[in-house]
Amino acid sequence: MSGPTREAAVLAEPMRSRWSPSVFDAHHELSAAEVATLLEAARWAPSAGNSQPWRFVVAPRGSAAHAAFVPHLSRGNSGWVPRASLVVVSGCEVVDVKDPDTARYDLGQAVAHLTLQAVAMGLHTHQLGGFDKPAAAAALGVPDSVRLVSAVAIGVRGDAAEVSEPDAEREHRERTRRPVDEIAHDLGWRPWAG
Amino acid sequence: MSGPTREAAVLAEPMRSRWSPSVFDAHHELSAAEVATLLEAARWAPSAGNSQPWRFVVAPRGSAAHAAFVPHLSRGNSGWVPRASLVVVSGCEVVDVKDPDTARYDLGQAVAHLTLQAVAMGLHTHQLGGFDKPAAAAALGVPDSVRLVSAVAIGVRGDAAEVSEPDAEREHRERTRRPVDEIAHDLGWRPWAG
Repeated sequence: MSGPTREAAVLAEPMRSRWSPSVFDAHHELSAAEVATLLEAARWAPSAGNSQPWRFVVAPRGSAAHAAFVPHLSRGNSGWVPRASLVVVSGCEVVDVKDPDTARYDLGQAVAHLTLQAVAMGLHTHQLGGFDKPAAAAALGVPDSVRLVSAVAIGVRGDAAEVSEPDAEREHRERTRRPVDEIAHDLGWRPWAG
Repeated sequence: MSGPTREAAVLAEPMRSRWSPSVFDAHHELSAAEVATLLEAARWAPSAGNSQPWRFVVAPRGSAAHAAFVPHLSRGNSGWVPRASLVVVSGCEVVDVKDPDTARYDLGQAVAHLTLQAVAMGLHTHQLGGFDKPAAAAALGVPDSVRLVSAVAIGVRGDAAEVSEPDAEREHRERTRRPVDEIAHDLGWRPWAG
């Protein structure tokens, strides 16, 4: 099933409508102002001691950064990701960071803020880890002090008839999550019962 | 300055209004339904391969889990955190996880979704890493396969006259972030120019 499920319907927007399509419109473009707003959302995320360890490479489709990045996508991602209007490659500082685990956690928060801002703007996002990170870092000129972690494809939905069958079918996977009692616990790790 | 700054005003809700107060109302309580909705927001966050590595201990003020957790707060957090209506202690699976870095990143996303859902519900949140994680894990009965990462204090704002001066002043720290050209880059790590 594509799109949100009934269970998520209790949530407020933009969390309620967020999901990760794989068919982007390969002609849609984002304005510089829209890109700036997405980055502003990431910028104002909270972080441990306000350390803000997140770093991004901004790669709109058609840019030199985009051309440098896409050859390093995994085979499964090489069809659908380049169609998106924008790829934001994310990484975090790993030098002079108090706690590298927390830096990844903080980066996840910043990307979540960016993606939810995108949803609020009528866009869709789909995050991926499937690319050759050392090779992409070298191609993009990312310094050694920054470790790449993910990429975010951002855009609007396109026509499934324009993409390969596996990419079109990717959207029809059922959207599932663990039951809440597997993730929420009470004292003694008992399932949380409300 | 407390509350959002002018720069963040371009953002959509609930990102726009999110900030981290330190003075919570020590009498306010959350309903079980409200807590369930917060957990639902975390539950529907995206993760690498839908691995959902996030795990939570749910500790409403007055619960046995809350009593077990609060002795392990750092001195600076021991005054203001226990006043919040709810503490959600967060951790992630570290065993049988493809990539531990990504598990922390995914946990950060789930907590971001939870906190933004809270803001959308008229609540405030303040995350913290300042607690004795091994001791808190032991007191709460967290299994060895889960590493604690953060806690989230959740509630409504209280009266600053009821708290210590350092806790009241904590809210008046200026809210700052790095300029966007320090976090967003183009090819060759040039500052992103839009």
